[in-house]
Amino acid sequence: MAKITMLGTGLIGTFYTRTLHGLRGRDKVVNVYSRSPERAKEFAREHHITRWSADLKEAILDTDSDVVVVGLPNNIHREAVLLAAQAGKAVLCTKPLGRTAAEALEMLRAVEWAGVFAGYLEDLVYTPKTLKALESVRNGALGRILWARSRETHPGPHSPWFWDAEQSGGGAIVDMGCHCIEIGRNFIGKDIRPVEAFCWGATQVHPIEAEDHAIGLVKYANGAIGQFEVSWTFRGGLDLRDEVSGTEGTVWLDHFLRTGFEMFTAAGQGGYVAEKAEGQKGWLFPVGDEVHELGYVHMFADMLDARDAKRAPMETFYDGYVVNAVIDACYRSMNSGRWEPIALEVWRGKEEGGAEKADKGNEAAGPAEKGDTLLFLKKEKMPDGRTKVIFKDKATGRIVQKIE
Amino acid sequence: MAKITMLGTGLIGTFYTRTLHGLRGRDKVVNVYSRSPERAKEFAREHHITRWSADLKEAILDTDSDVVVVGLPNNIHREAVLLAAQAGKAVLCTKPLGRTAAEALEMLRAVEWAGVFAGYLEDLVYTPKTLKALESVRNGALGRILWARSRETHPGPHSPWFWDAEQSGGGAIVDMGCHCIEIGRNFIGKDIRPVEAFCWGATQVHPIEAEDHAIGLVKYANGAIGQFEVSWTFRGGLDLRDEVSGTEGTVWLDHFLRTGFEMFTAAGQGGYVAEKAEGQKGWLFPVGDEVHELGYVHMFADMLDARDAKRAPMETFYDGYVVNAVIDACYRSMNSGRWEPIALEVWRGKEEGGAEKADKGNEAAGPAEKGDTLLFLKKEKMPDGRTKVIFKDKATGRIVQKIE
Amino acid sequence: MAKITMLGTGLIGTFYTRTLHGLRGRDKVVNVYSRSPERAKEFAREHHITRWSADLKEAILDTDSDVVVVGLPNNIHREAVLLAAQAGKAVLCTKPLGRTAAEALEMLRAVEWAGVFAGYLEDLVYTPKTLKALESVRNGALGRILWARSRETHPGPHSPWFWDAEQSGGGAIVDMGCHCIEIGRNFIGKDIRPVEAFCWGATQVHPIEAEDHAIGLVKYANGAIGQFEVSWTFRGGLDLRDEVSGTEGTVWLDHFLRTGFEMFTAAGQGGYVAEKAEGQKGWLFPVGDEVHELGYVHMFADMLDARDAKRAPMETFYDGYVVNAVIDACYRSMNSGRWEPIALEVWRGKEEGGAEKADKGNEAAGPAEKGDTLLFLKKEKMPDGRTKVIFKDKATGRIVQKIE
Amino acid sequence: MAKITMLGTGLIGTFYTRTLHGLRGRDKVVNVYSRSPERAKEFAREHHITRWSADLKEAILDTDSDVVVVGLPNNIHREAVLLAAQAGKAVLCTKPLGRTAAEALEMLRAVEWAGVFAGYLEDLVYTPKTLKALESVRNGALGRILWARSRETHPGPHSPWFWDAEQSGGGAIVDMGCHCIEIGRNFIGKDIRPVEAFCWGATQVHPIEAEDHAIGLVKYANGAIGQFEVSWTFRGGLDLRDEVSGTEGTVWLDHFLRTGFEMFTAAGQGGYVAEKAEGQKGWLFPVGDEVHELGYVHMFADMLDARDAKRAPMETFYDGYVVNAVIDACYRSMNSGRWEPIALEVWRGKEEGGAEKADKGNEAAGPAEKGDTLLFLKKEKMPDGRTKVIFKDKATGRIVQKIE
Repeated sequence: MAKITMLGTGLIGTFYTRTLHGLRGRDKVVNVYSRSPERAKEFAREHHITRWSADLKEAILDTDSDVVVVGLPNNIHREAVLLAAQAGKAVLCTKPLGRTAAEALEMLRAVEWAGVFAGYLEDLVYTPKTLKALESVRNGALGRILWARSRETHPGPHSPWFWDAEQSGGGAIVDMGCHCIEIGRNFIGKDIRPVEAFCWGATQVHPIEAEDHAIGLVKYANGAIGQFEVSWTFRGGLDLRDEVSGTEGTVWLDHFLRTGFEMFTAAGQGGYVAEKAEGQKGWLFPVGDEVHELGYVHMFADMLDARDAKRAPMETFYDGYVVNAVIDACYRSMNSGRWEPIALEVWRGKEEGGAEKADKGNEAAGPAEKGDTLLFLKKEKMPDGRTKVIFKDKATGRIVQKIE
Repeated sequence: MAKITMLGTGLIGTFYTRTLHGLRGRDKVVNVYSRSPERAKEFAREHHITRWSADLKEAILDTDSDVVVVGLPNNIHREAVLLAAQAGKAVLCTKPLGRTAAEALEMLRAVEWAGVFAGYLEDLVYTPKTLKALESVRNGALGRILWARSRETHPGPHSPWFWDAEQSGGGAIVDMGCHCIEIGRNFIGKDIRPVEAFCWGATQVHPIEAEDHAIGLVKYANGAIGQFEVSWTFRGGLDLRDEVSGTEGTVWLDHFLRTGFEMFTAAGQGGYVAEKAEGQKGWLFPVGDEVHELGYVHMFADMLDARDAKRAPMETFYDGYVVNAVIDACYRSMNSGRWEPIALEVWRGKEEGGAEKADKGNEAAGPAEKGDTLLFLKKEKMPDGRTKVIFKDKATGRIVQKIE
Repeated sequence: MAKITMLGTGLIGTFYTRTLHGLRGRDKVVNVYSRSPERAKEFAREHHITRWSADLKEAILDTDSDVVVVGLPNNIHREAVLLAAQAGKAVLCTKPLGRTAAEALEMLRAVEWAGVFAGYLEDLVYTPKTLKALESVRNGALGRILWARSRETHPGPHSPWFWDAEQSGGGAIVDMGCHCIEIGRNFIGKDIRPVEAFCWGATQVHPIEAEDHAIGLVKYANGAIGQFEVSWTFRGGLDLRDEVSGTEGTVWLDHFLRTGFEMFTAAGQGGYVAEKAEGQKGWLFPVGDEVHELGYVHMFADMLDARDAKRAPMETFYDGYVVNAVIDACYRSMNSGRWEPIALEVWRGKEEGGAEKADKGNEAAGPAEKGDTLLFLKKEKMPDGRTKVIFKDKATGRIVQKIE
Repeated sequence: MAKITMLGTGLIGTFYTRTLHGLRGRDKVVNVYSRSPERAKEFAREHHITRWSADLKEAILDTDSDVVVVGLPNNIHREAVLLAAQAGKAVLCTKPLGRTAAEALEMLRAVEWAGVFAGYLEDLVYTPKTLKALESVRNGALGRILWARSRETHPGPHSPWFWDAEQSGGGAIVDMGCHCIEIGRNFIGKDIRPVEAFCWGATQVHPIEAEDHAIGLVKYANGAIGQFEVSWTFRGGLDLRDEVSGTEGTVWLDHFLRTGFEMFTAAGQGGYVAEKAEGQKGWLFPVGDEVHELGYVHMFADMLDARDAKRAPMETFYDGYVVNAVIDACYRSMNSGRWEPIALEVWRGKEEGGAEKADKGNEAAGPAEKGDTLLFLKKEKMPDGRTKVIFKDKATGRIVQKIE
């Protein structure tokens, strides 16, 4: 059983607390902090939490709690993490870890120096679909991963501070790109070094300073490419999808808008449909159990199990740091209009990324080379039932087809 | 915390135990029974269960356990439940409750007479999607429910005893119809009396005595209709879908084959894909977290919470009894070829089902009646942008249309 | 090139004419009939048709047209077809052929006696998806067909006469059941005799005499089962789906509501979305090219090509007659509450339906029998990666499983 | 009726000819050219074409044909178009128009100087779904378009010459990017100037010189962004999807892999499933009528109708030229690693793109500004049923939320 101090009482704090108190759960939030005493008190009452506080340090130092969960605005992550590390407490921090890689690195060093358990609360890597898809990838079902697209778009965030670049550290990229980048890393391989990033971003709709729409590309040392699409301008709800391509297969995940639950109502629902749903009539697409589908349940289980077992969780502060470094490169690229190197002062993966070159034909997918002279390109069933195979002649470079 | 004796070590016992030990769960299986000592011992080892037994009575009487979970073949439910009731233990029994309504009624009376907590383990009513859809129905999003279709089909069960009509009490209807019937009751209203059933069943493919395919209809006192489709002849995996129609709306649920997880693999998975999946290559449709998506997590949470709170769970032995009564009528109908009355010696719902008649026009869906003379039938947007409204003249009975 | 007289100017006449004049089409509607001269004239103007008439006989006798298309209310089909046959004209009649099998048989005999080309305009059998699925079935992709479900439901028809049982011959069954029954026949095999029908029907919502919701089952001589679901009470648009199961496979067709076209609009469309669409905001599901997706294009191509080639079209008046005979049995069953024989005075298919019995195990799907003693039931991949095979012992009837 | 000379007998020529001869079509291919006399003769026989030729000039000069359709490898487009223009023939050219903008401009000038009718055969803009979606966009259903993603990926082309960069002019970008770019232009507005392009491309799998995977971004003068994803490395069939976002709505189109036709077969199909389908067993996703779904039918109808009506077709040689200019910029960007200007020597759209700035709040989507001091950002339904609205204070720039 873990005894937890929850820092933050917004939507994130609510989702986290609800998850931790979960179905027949053994863990317990024992203290909650909010800047506003009223909000802290009210939250404690709602969630049957014994103690509350409006003093950050006091909440963290609560001697009857072992774990601090940081669910605060981005500009307070650093302070909270540093206090928790100093206090020798296990600390779990919501995404993004820092507003910049520099902040993230400071936090990483603080917990490592203090020797406390630390976890990076990147929930979307823990959705049950993502966990199972990652297992398939590890089992080789997709072959070598070539491309991973992750998309998170919706009509805009739910809390005011997200919209304020000073507090949040940026716009849609900091808010959601962090999810997408880490999903891409997980599929492509966390030990493969992300080397360069390109990013387009713009403020297309909302009267704010930060970008409300961005598209980014991340080049990996092994030639794989990550792609993210984030937006606060999307209409129709919360669009949360991943697509992954490899030499042997494909995975498509839809986490929110098309999950096998479709409802038409002319009368309306009389309430909440789903996070960031728009409208209450017509065709609606609710989600079964949101905290589960969004990965919170499996995330906290991994975090607390890891702490009990004294092993690293699946998502560490180091991962959070890498994500921040990629985001930093994206913002530089938005300004420079070109690929920007991803600066990783600390790199703990493979040195040269184990780049496998595409210079030997796609052998896995097709028949063996014909003798020594032809390289296989593609095999295809034709409308007339025959099979066509296309080769390249190694000597002449000419393309040849054979009908079988 | 609940201390549980698990009876049965097949796929059901495995799913149940895995769920109870769940993610950060506080409950614990402390004893496991199997007819085979080897199997019991092995299961105990796998799931870190302290005690095991090959003696049913001994396992039930274990003084260090408070809850008995029956995950045995159908023909042993009655014996196990009666022993648990005698022992004063809380008892949770898998579906179907009995092989017949008579058996179920005996079990219902035993637990009620003994005053023990009892729950009916009808997992598919507890899938997160079903729970949320039921809430929408209660909120009026679908208006008055007219029709509920529930479908469960796959290539055939995983345990030998299902195929043996003596042990199981029948074929696909007993195995899966019980799910579908109870899903229909939940959507239409558990207090509405099911009055008549019609059923077609046949042995189309497998060399067995029992039906491997059946389609049934259940008439309710308020005019609503339940429909079930069950089969052991379906190819393509486990097809688990519900569709519900009401005067104001529609719900479509897909629990297994199309849930937003799609994978193509030319290489194969190297293992298990999903329950009753067929094939390991090409397009596959895995499920995120099976025990969650199939309702086990929310079912056991409700059961054990209800026991702690001394309230009835959502699914009771009485529900199991009603389901058995409907199944009995279905088997009679398969033989007689006609509607058969559903015999309910004990009925605890509304007396005349609160039948609402369809004699006043579909007011909710359309404009108010035109004066006193016209009944509204339908309103429709035409390709040219105008709106057509169709009425019936009360006096003459003639149908009239107006273009607006 | 065919010169056509169009009888009827409602939605059907409009869809038919639009299709016949299609994209770069060579055929031409040269005369149009409506009871109302204004409507006839207006329709002629809209569709660039030279001649129009408000006199049925005159329109049919037009010497410059070779083909008569009947797009009239059901109660006028017989008169129109008989006039066309008398006039020696090719005649294409919309669905259902008659209001009863007796009417249909009279029409069938009239065209056969007159020796004129006749086609039954059952468009939903001609949707491009259905045509391709039928080809797959003929190629054996699904093995022996066991079950075919066809569903057509929407909020109610667009023309007033559909709602009037005298003119239409019934309610939702006559209106849409005719489609579903013929789709079932096509998948199961037109030469297989439909022997018995069972039907539930009710007036659940609308203040009319006829049924606005019905579910029917059709038993075929070879043991296959057809299922139809028709309703004028469905909310959410036009639900048009077919599902077919065979010993080797499954087909799912969605013709209208989920075809790969999804749109969210907060602003609205400013017009027509799709046939029977409900609402203009929120998530909408338009269809690409309606007359194509609903089968009109391929239907008229087959009809007119068949006439040119002096062969029978895919759908003949005989098919229309069989459908009417099944509908008649359904209405009898609605009253009797039991299976009713399908009376076919004229039967042109296989005599005993080529019933293949399910008495030899599902050999195609599994491994060969083990020696002479075991019958194969099922093979399944287990979560631990091993394979389980279930057999029945021929001698003892006992069920046995082997783990491989 | 059009009399057509078909140049090319590959898959494109086959699809084109099949479409032109279509269902009850009035047009006719009267001459066919292939470099190989055998292939030309065989093609003529298969498609009932009177004349054939292995001499390009002779085929184009055929005095009994009025329209020349160019379905040849990219490196012969220019020659064929110039000959047709010289001959005063109407000419329809497959995509891409040229291998470079320079080639395309030469062709554009040739047909304009000769005054012949010319059409650009960009079929994917003509799919029935795309045509209807474009109409919705014109009707304002999506508001101002912000983003258009178009994706075409598959395991590699069917004809050898595509793989040869000299003949085709490049790899996946030239082959499929041309489709995606033009789809983007259609949604964003053809009169809006595309100003800059960025592109990543790599040879990830196949042993060829050209890129087999690319991702590109196109910036438009009004701030909208086009995105394309093209690949010859995708596994699972032909993935052909478009997604469009605007201030008021969203459109998702799936043209090939998920169109409402799903089939499982354990037995196999015994033949062709769909263009570029992989595998013949398991879950398959055929398409109803391929030439229709891929836009060929509506494309040729528009082209030939436009010629008859002496109006421009929807897709002109000028459009082909703009697409080539974007592709040229993409290749430059692949090398430079930065945004590259799109060089359009000839620009026929709006001068400054009618850029609408995002500086006034998203008024259409939300409530009007609160007095003069607050700018609307977002409105959201909360889980507790209340509504939260987020504003920005004009004076202070601070973000404020109100709970209603």
